[in-house]
Amino acid sequence: AGPAKPTRLGLCAACHGETGMAQVPGVPNLAGQKLDYLRDALKQYRDGRRNVPQMRAAIGPMSDADLDELARWFSAQAPSHQGNP
Amino acid sequence: AGPAKPTRLGLCAACHGETGMAQVPGVPNLAGQKLDYLRDALKQYRDGRRNVPQMRAAIGPMSDADLDELARWFSAQAPSHQGNP
Repeated sequence: AGPAKPTRLGLCAACHGETGMAQVPGVPNLAGQKLDYLRDALKQYRDGRRNVPQMRAAIGPMSDADLDELARWFSAQAPSHQGNP
Repeated sequence: AGPAKPTRLGLCAACHGETGMAQVPGVPNLAGQKLDYLRDALKQYRDGRRNVPQMRAAIGPMSDADLDELARWFSAQAPSHQGNP
């Protein structure tokens, strides 16, 4: 069945897509990404070690449990190949 | 046909896999990732804005052209779904 849709998904989906296939330039795909990598990257964005203001604004107020729920969601999605140029 | 195999691919492949599907804990998949995101992330790892010693050691000596070749390679690979837990 996969993970339930996170309550905080909306803000992420605006740029990364609800299933983690991004449509916005410079924004990474998240679908099928390694769970441990996603968890770690989210914490780095939240605390500013990865200094991306949009990400800090989006997830700055989120708890570890929120981030974990989002990481699990995106990691569980199936990636598709968009045929990058 | 897709991009030619980069001459610098070997070092990357050790952790990220030759086709960008990582088998090492904490290491992200790169297959099918957005080209512009990969280019930018590589430069951040090279100059230390993303502070990952393994990455800096691997790509510190590489030119922008090297990084571009690697970004194009991984972006062009088809992602597969590994069924993350």
